[in-house]
Amino acid sequence: MAGGIRVTVWNEGEHEKLNAEIAKLYPKGLGGQIAQYLERQAGIASVHVSELSDEGQGLTDEILARTDVMTWWGHRAHGDVTDENVERVCARVRDGMGLIVLHSGHYAKVFRRLMGTSCQLKWREIGEKERLWVVDPGHPIADGLPEYFELPHVEMYGEHFAVPQPDQLVFVSWFEGGEVFRSGCCWHRERGKVFYFRPGHETLPIYHDEHVLKVIGNAVRWAAPCGVEAVTRGNVEPLEDIGPAA
Amino acid sequence: MAGGIRVTVWNEGEHEKLNAEIAKLYPKGLGGQIAQYLERQAGIASVHVSELSDEGQGLTDEILARTDVMTWWGHRAHGDVTDENVERVCARVRDGMGLIVLHSGHYAKVFRRLMGTSCQLKWREIGEKERLWVVDPGHPIADGLPEYFELPHVEMYGEHFAVPQPDQLVFVSWFEGGEVFRSGCCWHRERGKVFYFRPGHETLPIYHDEHVLKVIGNAVRWAAPCGVEAVTRGNVEPLEDIGPAA
Amino acid sequence: MAGGIRVTVWNEGEHEKLNAEIAKLYPKGLGGQIAQYLERQAGIASVHVSELSDEGQGLTDEILARTDVMTWWGHRAHGDVTDENVERVCARVRDGMGLIVLHSGHYAKVFRRLMGTSCQLKWREIGEKERLWVVDPGHPIADGLPEYFELPHVEMYGEHFAVPQPDQLVFVSWFEGGEVFRSGCCWHRERGKVFYFRPGHETLPIYHDEHVLKVIGNAVRWAAPCGVEAVTRGNVEPLEDIGPAA
Amino acid sequence: MAGGIRVTVWNEGEHEKLNAEIAKLYPKGLGGQIAQYLERQAGIASVHVSELSDEGQGLTDEILARTDVMTWWGHRAHGDVTDENVERVCARVRDGMGLIVLHSGHYAKVFRRLMGTSCQLKWREIGEKERLWVVDPGHPIADGLPEYFELPHVEMYGEHFAVPQPDQLVFVSWFEGGEVFRSGCCWHRERGKVFYFRPGHETLPIYHDEHVLKVIGNAVRWAAPCGVEAVTRGNVEPLEDIGPAA
Repeated sequence: MAGGIRVTVWNEGEHEKLNAEIAKLYPKGLGGQIAQYLERQAGIASVHVSELSDEGQGLTDEILARTDVMTWWGHRAHGDVTDENVERVCARVRDGMGLIVLHSGHYAKVFRRLMGTSCQLKWREIGEKERLWVVDPGHPIADGLPEYFELPHVEMYGEHFAVPQPDQLVFVSWFEGGEVFRSGCCWHRERGKVFYFRPGHETLPIYHDEHVLKVIGNAVRWAAPCGVEAVTRGNVEPLEDIGPAA
Repeated sequence: MAGGIRVTVWNEGEHEKLNAEIAKLYPKGLGGQIAQYLERQAGIASVHVSELSDEGQGLTDEILARTDVMTWWGHRAHGDVTDENVERVCARVRDGMGLIVLHSGHYAKVFRRLMGTSCQLKWREIGEKERLWVVDPGHPIADGLPEYFELPHVEMYGEHFAVPQPDQLVFVSWFEGGEVFRSGCCWHRERGKVFYFRPGHETLPIYHDEHVLKVIGNAVRWAAPCGVEAVTRGNVEPLEDIGPAA
Repeated sequence: MAGGIRVTVWNEGEHEKLNAEIAKLYPKGLGGQIAQYLERQAGIASVHVSELSDEGQGLTDEILARTDVMTWWGHRAHGDVTDENVERVCARVRDGMGLIVLHSGHYAKVFRRLMGTSCQLKWREIGEKERLWVVDPGHPIADGLPEYFELPHVEMYGEHFAVPQPDQLVFVSWFEGGEVFRSGCCWHRERGKVFYFRPGHETLPIYHDEHVLKVIGNAVRWAAPCGVEAVTRGNVEPLEDIGPAA
Repeated sequence: MAGGIRVTVWNEGEHEKLNAEIAKLYPKGLGGQIAQYLERQAGIASVHVSELSDEGQGLTDEILARTDVMTWWGHRAHGDVTDENVERVCARVRDGMGLIVLHSGHYAKVFRRLMGTSCQLKWREIGEKERLWVVDPGHPIADGLPEYFELPHVEMYGEHFAVPQPDQLVFVSWFEGGEVFRSGCCWHRERGKVFYFRPGHETLPIYHDEHVLKVIGNAVRWAAPCGVEAVTRGNVEPLEDIGPAA
């Protein structure tokens, strides 16, 4: 396990408590679901779940110090993350920690601070189809993916996405209703790599989709700091049923 | 007129001669149609049309020397442009001439040589709808455009578009059939600016669309070399009926 | 004059009051010196000087609303600019206002917020020689410049400069003492363009140098929002003695 | 050894035969020297040396098929590499092969074709000092390097270096005589990664320098295609005396 990537899955953890449907979809929370994939299927050596309600909002110095890559899911409680914690996370990114920002995390304070822009976008919630096209097939985050993959029912996010032009653009989404979106975007902030990945909505089984999970796993490896070997557990399980949803 | 941008509209000019429907759509040729817009509506001071069948393939030293920006439309006769002329055009680009590559010009030798890649893509010709989204609303090529515009019937171009990642990405297309495409892409090659713009097909009235034409006019201004003032003719005509097609 | 670029030269204005030598070098303040160049030699139609000690720190809504491009010089009082004003300036940039950040402004709150990084660098103040090389000769900010220009005595800034990789890199500096620096860097933040330009120190006559001033003038034109024509005053004066320093 | 990176060190191999001093410096050829480092110190599993005088110019389909990353050193015989072989190498790069272009290789046909520009630069051969600064300390090619390293006697290369702006800029050189140079530049060409690294001259012991060699080793790892694990030999030797030069 020595040398492996240490991941902290940061999860707001509010929706799961407030809505029984969401709790049913993600019985261990959205964070627990992602963590389970990273541990069992992606073979990441060390995965920790932090939640907003944890001590220090799950963002203590101790946690940050032992995190090589953090994934971030938040939505309704962006404003509750303290400015001090936001600055602490951003400082760790600048120092080399990778950051994978998921879905509604586009409006998290940490992401907006790292981008320097408003990070606004359009959205529509009618459960339409999304098709994610790989526009950079040689990028490690697209490794092992087909030329596109589909999600049958999603919340739509549309352009204009108010971010700095990504350093690399990996995915562009097509939506049934007529929109497009830059769904997989890479940036560098000093020593740290940042990846934004669009899919994911609390009321839909997005984090049960094998392609979505594969992208998150690839992104974790891509975002790991230099010198952190992608050493993984030997016994990686096949991707199969990983939760109660289809 | 002194100081204005001097444009050469390079047009292969084969389809118009071989197909009566195309000739009807573009009685002055595709090149003539674009040139007419640049002169009358965009107010470009000096516009010249060159065709493959012209002396020196319309790419003589004299013509190149007096060209600030060249637009390029070719399709069936890419292979007929001599390697010597390809190198001459590329050298002028490196020296500062802007180049606007249109539609099937993605596979022109000049474009492939400047990109260093294969420039391949997918296509489908069933006359489906395209919606072009502006993903960089502050870019001068998007100046004056709405957040998206539509073309009711087009030939589809799909990813993966095998080009180097654009220096700036201005448009992303949505297609009715499920594809996306990076439709407006900027690159720099030494002193010269290169813009690829997807719309345009010989059998469809694409170059009668006001938004498509506006983009070409904006791109000409963007691609002009430093020091060439965008001085234009005083009496710019309103955009109205500019040809026989709808 | 209608349609010309409206510039606000924001100047901290502290050093000039505290040090007689600096006051002698810049009797109208560093801001006054830059403004004078922009008005008289660069032919900018409308130039306003704002200082930290002005009402609203010279950053009122009214001032921002009538500013197309802002230049920013600050040093000792970065911390005094209120967070509210910082956010107001950043919002205007995202909305299209160009921002030219000069020298020690690398550590201004507005710049750090737009970059999302620490913006730290090395420095040394022994009055050594700097040579600025143009590495993108086709860029409009380098228009009219020789392949390099020199400043005989400067404060050195050295790498690593902790900014996101610039969208375009225009100048790289060579220093007598053995350092290099990315001295002219362009970024885009939504609709706004940001240019960082290294030269400038309060105790040296940097803003009397004709090449430095020419770069600032070029940058103002480059950073102007789309649709703001670079209309300038008719009677532009030749660059000659523009202050008390050599 | 299965899964390790397979490297072909392509070496022109002319200077070594024509000049006894060079032969003394590089008794196994410049290629042999680089290969020895990659095998013994960098722990690359499979290293093959190809020379211009080999069958098929050392660029046969068989060799290319088994190459994950190619390093390229050429100088006096650029023109002798056949256009067919140039196209074959470029096609392999587009298909995913990494390419590390060294020193005078900036003017190799393969590099110029992949860049789409002239790739010209300035040079001076007086044995002056070079200091290479890391301007992207988080980049894997800079992994394990100090903030700068020096070469006491080099051939100088100066700007303007006529290449497309690099996708990532890793090193900037300072030269004793007053020049700067973008010495470590990354580009992507479809699935293939390209790295240009400036140091290296046939009459100087540049490829005996531990930092130069470390960069080449890092670059080989960075340029390897996705899915090629950086598996290396177990018994990596310490970097010590690796040739007759100091």
